[in-house]
Amino acid sequence: MAGTDLTPRPEHHFTFGLWTVGNRGRDPFGHEVRPAIDPVDAVHRLADLGAYGVNLHDDDLVPHGASASERDAIVARFRRALDDTGMCVPMATTNLFSLPVFKEGAFCANDPAVRRFALAKTLDAIDLGVELGARTYVMWGGREGTECDAAKDVRLALDRYKEAVDTCCAYVRDQGHDLRFALEPKPNEPRGDMYLPTVGHALAFVNELEWPEMVGLNPEFAHETMSGLSFNHAVAQCLWHDKLFHIDLNAQRIGKFDQDFRFGSEGVRDAFYTVKLLEDSGWDGMRHFDAHPYRTEDADGVWDFALGCMRTYLVLAAAARRFRTDPEIAAALEAAGAPQLASPTMPDGADAAAIASLRTERFDETALAARGYANERLDQLVTELLLGVR
Amino acid sequence: MAGTDLTPRPEHHFTFGLWTVGNRGRDPFGHEVRPAIDPVDAVHRLADLGAYGVNLHDDDLVPHGASASERDAIVARFRRALDDTGMCVPMATTNLFSLPVFKEGAFCANDPAVRRFALAKTLDAIDLGVELGARTYVMWGGREGTECDAAKDVRLALDRYKEAVDTCCAYVRDQGHDLRFALEPKPNEPRGDMYLPTVGHALAFVNELEWPEMVGLNPEFAHETMSGLSFNHAVAQCLWHDKLFHIDLNAQRIGKFDQDFRFGSEGVRDAFYTVKLLEDSGWDGMRHFDAHPYRTEDADGVWDFALGCMRTYLVLAAAARRFRTDPEIAAALEAAGAPQLASPTMPDGADAAAIASLRTERFDETALAARGYANERLDQLVTELLLGVR
Amino acid sequence: MAGTDLTPRPEHHFTFGLWTVGNRGRDPFGHEVRPAIDPVDAVHRLADLGAYGVNLHDDDLVPHGASASERDAIVARFRRALDDTGMCVPMATTNLFSLPVFKEGAFCANDPAVRRFALAKTLDAIDLGVELGARTYVMWGGREGTECDAAKDVRLALDRYKEAVDTCCAYVRDQGHDLRFALEPKPNEPRGDMYLPTVGHALAFVNELEWPEMVGLNPEFAHETMSGLSFNHAVAQCLWHDKLFHIDLNAQRIGKFDQDFRFGSEGVRDAFYTVKLLEDSGWDGMRHFDAHPYRTEDADGVWDFALGCMRTYLVLAAAARRFRTDPEIAAALEAAGAPQLASPTMPDGADAAAIASLRTERFDETALAARGYANERLDQLVTELLLGVR
Amino acid sequence: MAGTDLTPRPEHHFTFGLWTVGNRGRDPFGHEVRPAIDPVDAVHRLADLGAYGVNLHDDDLVPHGASASERDAIVARFRRALDDTGMCVPMATTNLFSLPVFKEGAFCANDPAVRRFALAKTLDAIDLGVELGARTYVMWGGREGTECDAAKDVRLALDRYKEAVDTCCAYVRDQGHDLRFALEPKPNEPRGDMYLPTVGHALAFVNELEWPEMVGLNPEFAHETMSGLSFNHAVAQCLWHDKLFHIDLNAQRIGKFDQDFRFGSEGVRDAFYTVKLLEDSGWDGMRHFDAHPYRTEDADGVWDFALGCMRTYLVLAAAARRFRTDPEIAAALEAAGAPQLASPTMPDGADAAAIASLRTERFDETALAARGYANERLDQLVTELLLGVR
Repeated sequence: MAGTDLTPRPEHHFTFGLWTVGNRGRDPFGHEVRPAIDPVDAVHRLADLGAYGVNLHDDDLVPHGASASERDAIVARFRRALDDTGMCVPMATTNLFSLPVFKEGAFCANDPAVRRFALAKTLDAIDLGVELGARTYVMWGGREGTECDAAKDVRLALDRYKEAVDTCCAYVRDQGHDLRFALEPKPNEPRGDMYLPTVGHALAFVNELEWPEMVGLNPEFAHETMSGLSFNHAVAQCLWHDKLFHIDLNAQRIGKFDQDFRFGSEGVRDAFYTVKLLEDSGWDGMRHFDAHPYRTEDADGVWDFALGCMRTYLVLAAAARRFRTDPEIAAALEAAGAPQLASPTMPDGADAAAIASLRTERFDETALAARGYANERLDQLVTELLLGVR
Repeated sequence: MAGTDLTPRPEHHFTFGLWTVGNRGRDPFGHEVRPAIDPVDAVHRLADLGAYGVNLHDDDLVPHGASASERDAIVARFRRALDDTGMCVPMATTNLFSLPVFKEGAFCANDPAVRRFALAKTLDAIDLGVELGARTYVMWGGREGTECDAAKDVRLALDRYKEAVDTCCAYVRDQGHDLRFALEPKPNEPRGDMYLPTVGHALAFVNELEWPEMVGLNPEFAHETMSGLSFNHAVAQCLWHDKLFHIDLNAQRIGKFDQDFRFGSEGVRDAFYTVKLLEDSGWDGMRHFDAHPYRTEDADGVWDFALGCMRTYLVLAAAARRFRTDPEIAAALEAAGAPQLASPTMPDGADAAAIASLRTERFDETALAARGYANERLDQLVTELLLGVR
Repeated sequence: MAGTDLTPRPEHHFTFGLWTVGNRGRDPFGHEVRPAIDPVDAVHRLADLGAYGVNLHDDDLVPHGASASERDAIVARFRRALDDTGMCVPMATTNLFSLPVFKEGAFCANDPAVRRFALAKTLDAIDLGVELGARTYVMWGGREGTECDAAKDVRLALDRYKEAVDTCCAYVRDQGHDLRFALEPKPNEPRGDMYLPTVGHALAFVNELEWPEMVGLNPEFAHETMSGLSFNHAVAQCLWHDKLFHIDLNAQRIGKFDQDFRFGSEGVRDAFYTVKLLEDSGWDGMRHFDAHPYRTEDADGVWDFALGCMRTYLVLAAAARRFRTDPEIAAALEAAGAPQLASPTMPDGADAAAIASLRTERFDETALAARGYANERLDQLVTELLLGVR
Repeated sequence: MAGTDLTPRPEHHFTFGLWTVGNRGRDPFGHEVRPAIDPVDAVHRLADLGAYGVNLHDDDLVPHGASASERDAIVARFRRALDDTGMCVPMATTNLFSLPVFKEGAFCANDPAVRRFALAKTLDAIDLGVELGARTYVMWGGREGTECDAAKDVRLALDRYKEAVDTCCAYVRDQGHDLRFALEPKPNEPRGDMYLPTVGHALAFVNELEWPEMVGLNPEFAHETMSGLSFNHAVAQCLWHDKLFHIDLNAQRIGKFDQDFRFGSEGVRDAFYTVKLLEDSGWDGMRHFDAHPYRTEDADGVWDFALGCMRTYLVLAAAARRFRTDPEIAAALEAAGAPQLASPTMPDGADAAAIASLRTERFDETALAARGYANERLDQLVTELLLGVR
């Protein structure tokens, strides 16, 4: 609370996409309101604010269609900015959604030539990411889906999706790159319904890949929340499967357009449990912000936005630390039976004898039903912790 | 359209839960409005309407707490009704949500004694289901979740969930039963957030089980739709993973309480694509209706409801057949490139040579971007097909 | 069904916004995919398809910043296209959302200069609309709202909103124009939360205006549906208040980004009840489509889209006619008690004697509770009517 | 923050429904888990916790069907509890939703006898409320709506709704009671779609009543939030129309079943702005909690729940006070232009001269568009205020 150090530092591993601070405020109903930001400037400003690194789509840095020499010059100049500031590029990704050529899909486009173009663009972008030091490569299938379900057989689409991811893995293995892939699910927007709509669907998909160990998840707060799902539960299930490879932090209200608000500005309770989970589980990856400033903002507002994302994370991390040492919370957890969940249900396993023993057990159903779990007390303690009054 | 035979017959494999036609109209704000229906009467009425079978929770047939002899008498009498009518019980399940003892969870309850009670109740219910001939056993975790996320560690909860399912599988293997399990996901209600909230999360979970081949999915129209997800996409992904073990058909509007309306009464477009998918993929399982009559209905309305579910399925199945033979639709599918999705992206595989070849390929991006996919035409044709004007 | 004449004709009063067929497929994640359409071409193509008129924002026809002589030349050329085709412009509106100057609001902007600019632009646009023959002027407050609620006092914002609408009314009265205003509610997007978010809020707002008789509603299918509200109920409440001044028809799924899909492509049941209501109530206004083609489409797809909107309306209108003459539906309506709702509850009024009489009345509560309302049967009949099998 | 006095006291005007602490934990999937609470005990416990009063439905206190003498004995005993504790009953209402007789509606039931029964029950309940001192009478139309839209004409339903409210007003006027009515909107649940679904629709409806001055609104946090609407905006619009007559505070996530969670447990940002609005506007009415304890709770949890509602309100009220005196927030409000919204757009009115003057005004559109509104900074300051770090 008062006294908490809210200064972001590189060791906090805060990263931003170039496209986040670089967002110019265009939306479905309005034109750009802010000038373009030079990626080199973005690196310097973010470094000054205490960030650890920046992430990028291929086209965020190198305009689509640039010649090889233009590309190299751009990359070299950007490289110098990284070196000057000590910033790094932990994650890279491909823009497979802006160009008109991808309007019907990219990896799952009906037209095989479009799919091949998408794949070639991705391999180029992987090279760029690796050159910049990225160890995680995100795949978001922004155009993989339909409005007219008749137009695309879902099972064939998943075949093609798998083929594309397998091909990228083959390439990375062949090149000997130290790079893992992280799938980013999203339920809808820009398509009516998108494939791999939630963390769960993507986790299941990974199991069908040729090298499942190379592919994990990049869950995004806004994307799960659009469907009304708990983001912290989604992240926890990723951890349970050992598949949390990256994370996108922002804010969103349920059942709305993709808002990508400043982290913690909406849904602060879910944000708190997410931060608590990352901190408690010893997550050593990035705290990546995939958000953008309100369209009301000028250039100053962009940096207020970036700083705000990091400060809120630090506030919530401090609350998570207080949670661990608060004796009333500990007592309420005990009353809720939370520690009991670690005890196995079948401590002697599930062989015939153990099952037979279970079936002769007598249960005092009335007594078990009478137990109160003090969840109201616990929840109120968390509320007051979060609101800074304990 | 006119002339379509809409008479349900056993070969259509329509089934209903005892709890569906037996629903008495209680809701969070109101008391029961209809008398209880004797399960034996339900069997006869559904048989008369052309259904193939009935499904049940343990407590739907045998009241909780019945003695062994009471149970046997009830089962014997029910068995006779099945024999008299030729009806069967293809699926059974456990009620792990109504009793106060399960208020904090069942397989994932914090209290180990509650978990053991839930498991023992399930094993009894498996015996009942097998005795009645069930080959599919559904698991819906109605109380597995939280309102206060601090009260339960999701990763431990998933450990306990896995332990319970593995134990049930061990029991079934040990007994030599011919029985498979089907997990039924749901995002919320009655809990604030539930574990395995979507088809995707449950598919992923299955991969961590000890005998994953014994466990598949029971997707429910209403449950996926509550989250705003496409149900037909969810069913297709189940099929893609070879994990469609059962299906729950009903109707629901997005972002509402669990409505369980008559199949096809809401969301008829998604219902059509679901029926089309089941029919096109040669699904040989049940068409199970997990719905209930409006609370406005008396006893007659119950059977109108049941008949309506089946008739709408038959209307949609007929539309799916017309879809396959409609020449304008075939032309629009061609224009949409739908058949092209079956062609691999990398026909020669993804070895180094194939990848190198891909990277030297020249793409006419402008031409690819200019292509129109006629999805409006196709979608309108489907709309008119569905509305019976073609 | 088969045999229904689905040819759109001017007497059906179908209209399209220039911005609908002119939509170029830009979205938050992608660039334009279709070339701009000359408004004159749009008029010709829509006339060929059987439309009655076109509607427009000021900037749809006259680019912002055009000189007076440029404007006059554009208008004259457009006028000729209208004359050549017999098309008209029944409705006009102002674009108060695309320009960066409106990023914080227009009529409710915090900065008074922005508000005055918005008002001046609107008065110019009213002149343009009136010059083209418009009798209805729509007001959609695309930027009136907030993401940060602290930034704007809602009550002051409503004061300013009222001031702007009153000023426009004063101008129209002063000019003697035959023009009415129609407010278009929307809950969110592009702003986090928008003022006058539903039909209800706008209806209430009208009552506080200086000339409430000059202002009504322009309900939009997509906008009410985004909030999960029934569109046909909203239109009915507008009619009940005698405030249906215009209507925007399209399609949308609940809890998603603003989709503006082809009319009837989603939510066909609500679309049917809306068409039925318009037809049954003798609505003599426009059937305006505020939708846009999928981004997958080329120029041909645009006209498939436009034709599809109109054809689906005609299909649904034909179903509404069959509804009125179907004897089984009539019987089900009777069983549902639908005609009884026209009988007053207090046929002798609510004076002291009538109330005293009511209070001594004896009710057979058991008999009243036992009545079944046959809503399942009725609803299934409507479903089958809609699916073309009756 | 630390040091804030969080002790509820009668002067805070906190009230609870008897049905809230008396909620027994029944839900659509489960039986009651807690014993019934004697209303007299509820009064004593709530008084001990610092509440000001209790509110009730007729049947909460007097079981439906009680004889006149039973009723009088119950009321007298309850009256003594109020006198002993100094508690009062500021609001009363009618249960028109639990009994089977209301399954098809109450004031808008198709059957006129049901409507008359509903009205008679309401008049009795008004007498009870007035006898207990209530000055506000809430009307929630829990069964007014449809699943099958064909079954009920919305316009006729609104006629009947108006007739019922007008009759109640006539009765109250005739009796000379000092009682106002407050309509409580809700979008759905238990009905598929309900009439007067939002605050806006109810505000509009009031204008058509015979004595609109007697009828205002009882907005509920959960009900507006179910539709994804901003609750604080809804309350502000009620205040703008001078129609905030009562308020129901609780918590809810968007697009879910009606959760009625402890105030502030979800949506704390909207809760904060609501408290800030009530406190800033000098609201002198009740802070009524219409929520219920989680089903995990035993009797102790019920009182933890009640205390938590009040404590969170006090935390948020304290934050609202700090908001008013925080100099950085004041500076950010200035930068956002918030105070400018109080300036009229047309300071000289809207006569022809003022309008002519507006139209000759020159605007520096570029400069106006360049202005930044510092909403990110302001929003972050509010976030940090709310999280207790400033």
